[in-house]
Amino acid sequence: MAVKPIPGEVPWRADVIGTAKWRGVPLREVLRAVGVEADARYVAFTSLDEAQFEGEKVSYGSSIALEKALSPDVLLAYEVNDEPLAPEHGFPLRVIVPGYIGARSVKWLREITLQEHPSTNPYQARDYKVFPPEITAQTADWIRGKTIEDLTLNAVITTPQEGETVAAGPTRIQGYAITGAGAPVERVELSIDGGKTWTTANIVERADPYAWCFWEVTVALSPGDCQLLVRAWDASRQTQPEDVRQLWNFKGYMNNAWHRVKIHVA
Amino acid sequence: MAVKPIPGEVPWRADVIGTAKWRGVPLREVLRAVGVEADARYVAFTSLDEAQFEGEKVSYGSSIALEKALSPDVLLAYEVNDEPLAPEHGFPLRVIVPGYIGARSVKWLREITLQEHPSTNPYQARDYKVFPPEITAQTADWIRGKTIEDLTLNAVITTPQEGETVAAGPTRIQGYAITGAGAPVERVELSIDGGKTWTTANIVERADPYAWCFWEVTVALSPGDCQLLVRAWDASRQTQPEDVRQLWNFKGYMNNAWHRVKIHVA
Repeated sequence: MAVKPIPGEVPWRADVIGTAKWRGVPLREVLRAVGVEADARYVAFTSLDEAQFEGEKVSYGSSIALEKALSPDVLLAYEVNDEPLAPEHGFPLRVIVPGYIGARSVKWLREITLQEHPSTNPYQARDYKVFPPEITAQTADWIRGKTIEDLTLNAVITTPQEGETVAAGPTRIQGYAITGAGAPVERVELSIDGGKTWTTANIVERADPYAWCFWEVTVALSPGDCQLLVRAWDASRQTQPEDVRQLWNFKGYMNNAWHRVKIHVA
Repeated sequence: MAVKPIPGEVPWRADVIGTAKWRGVPLREVLRAVGVEADARYVAFTSLDEAQFEGEKVSYGSSIALEKALSPDVLLAYEVNDEPLAPEHGFPLRVIVPGYIGARSVKWLREITLQEHPSTNPYQARDYKVFPPEITAQTADWIRGKTIEDLTLNAVITTPQEGETVAAGPTRIQGYAITGAGAPVERVELSIDGGKTWTTANIVERADPYAWCFWEVTVALSPGDCQLLVRAWDASRQTQPEDVRQLWNFKGYMNNAWHRVKIHVA
């Protein structure tokens, strides 16, 4: 709990994200084959998954704007990493919406609907929305929340981990950086002095612009307690906010403040 | 001078930006008419303007990536606000590259070249680049600087102005917000308590996503010294950095830290 408690908090940390290789049919080919009527603005997906939303049984569902649905990267996927989808990954068919939060990539796909309005499924209409900082679960007018679509720019330290003890001297720090549908990750920087100075990391592996990239940098650490800070810049020179308190929203979504890892140097 | 002196600083403040209505021929129609060879990657523009760069006489010039040049919004413009271009605006023909810094919108256009590499004109190859904070004019390796293309997200307070005295009570604060080629401005917020709490402003006028939008908000001010802070969020939930020191580069470019205006409330 870095700022305030989050009702119904899911303990998501820096490791609940990944990159995989997907194979499927571009959604736009299917849409073109069936035809898109002039008043269609959104593409809604309904899952075979029967979920619970605030105690009511509901099929999972979501939607994306037609414009995004027509981009070549949105897939109806049947393979991941050269294997057929496992049941837990959405067998036999799931949606993949690159650059967007996972909630839009509906698994166990049952139905696709072209419609004028976003999906009214509660997972689209109520969940995954960001509210201004003064709004609480009690005062939220769900219609007015900002629907989350693409990921924000973020960088994460994966090695060393919080609380770890490392030996003094040159130390390799590693992690990943990722962004959404905007400009790609351009630069990753590490600070060991609270953000006064930064060292540019090497981006050692990157694939698709939607995929994460891996970075590493070697810094000289002196004995004592040390806080590692990381931040990324994208190709539009946009960077991340410094302070998580500046991003507070009661659902706790989309925190892309500098990632901080406290270690002990022995 | 908020952080450090900038060699050859141009006194650019919050008022050296504007939005106008341009009319012209889409550059891509011209490129399609002449044909684009397979190895072309950049479109370079040369001006009739004879400028000085570090004491040497040089025609002004710049370039943009072919991909941007083929977007429908890039114009060869001959009218501004329904009037023929005035001489100082680039008569008879100038480039307009929406979302990008003005330096790419070459005036008094003489020549367009399709080529494999960015323009070698010093205004492209050396000027308008952002360097890491530790680099100075003396140590800069110009090739390694990051060429500035699209604007970063920014919001500015225009009323009241720095040092102004205003009456206590409900006070209307006004300004503009703008971004580049990424997600449009979604939300503007004002703080009068150093960023502890924020009030959402109304976006009162917006045109094209590339144009600035105007915002205003009424806040209750108490007598004494007061610092107004403003920040914008874009539709991808990206926001601006808090502290200008975190954006330091020796050319002083692309500062999009929160705009701060100190006033006196009487």
